[in-house]
Amino acid sequence: MSDRDPTPSNSDEQLAYEDLSVGDRFESDRTVELTRDSIVEFGREYDPQPFHVGDDAPAASPFDGLVASGLHSFAACNRLATEAFFGRVAFLGGRGVDDLRWYRPVRPGDALSADVEVVEKRVSASDPRRGYVDVDVTGRAPAGDRVLGWRVLGMIQRRDPE
Amino acid sequence: MSDRDPTPSNSDEQLAYEDLSVGDRFESDRTVELTRDSIVEFGREYDPQPFHVGDDAPAASPFDGLVASGLHSFAACNRLATEAFFGRVAFLGGRGVDDLRWYRPVRPGDALSADVEVVEKRVSASDPRRGYVDVDVTGRAPAGDRVLGWRVLGMIQRRDPE
Repeated sequence: MSDRDPTPSNSDEQLAYEDLSVGDRFESDRTVELTRDSIVEFGREYDPQPFHVGDDAPAASPFDGLVASGLHSFAACNRLATEAFFGRVAFLGGRGVDDLRWYRPVRPGDALSADVEVVEKRVSASDPRRGYVDVDVTGRAPAGDRVLGWRVLGMIQRRDPE
Repeated sequence: MSDRDPTPSNSDEQLAYEDLSVGDRFESDRTVELTRDSIVEFGREYDPQPFHVGDDAPAASPFDGLVASGLHSFAACNRLATEAFFGRVAFLGGRGVDDLRWYRPVRPGDALSADVEVVEKRVSASDPRRGYVDVDVTGRAPAGDRVLGWRVLGMIQRRDPE
């Protein structure tokens, strides 16, 4: 779903660079819940800090109890952003990610949604078949307040490279 | 392991803000292999693009065959960086991540190492118990060339807040 839905009539067709405008916004149509089990499993595999795996946190920890790894909330929201946007466009991969920020901890049972907004686009100077499209991804709590966010520097195929 | 090892004599003691200097470098003492199964499993869960889950890649894909999600190589190297650094310091969490970049695709069977370098430190103005320590994390191929990298804006406990 998106506020302004530029989906081609043929729904199998992916959106190309030309179909996107700065300000276009795409929203996930579901939330994902970070369960205690999934938080601990992710933490043990990728971010084994005491406060991500359920061990007693050291006294100095700023967290009161188990919190999800920031990489876990990032990955979970990327899944939603892929359903809403990255999987719907002719995505050629990311050049990078900037400004990944966590605004508050994610605790067991928290549900997150995600939305994607196009913030910049330009044709590649080196390869006219590609467009650079930068998007801001925001993970939100059910009430809408942002929990985390980042900018993806993406590459999307052009339909008419000339 | 680290080039300059500031580990206290009591190995249970975590490194504090005061123990770290700009230029200190910490290296993982092992590599992690991204297997085909782990790439597909991660892709299905967090980044379900055709080129991350083993489906036929669209003609326009810049990748020839299956490649790991960039979030997967990021998370796998974060595990190594936690063993080498984040789990050895009195880490109070990350303020954010900047400049996450992927320099080349990661394919099934590729092994990665990670190293962490302290690039900036300063005491928090708002909370003298905390120090801000920024580090560059680099994921490397066995020959040493960098595969991905990012900067963590971290917070580390001070031993002597006065």
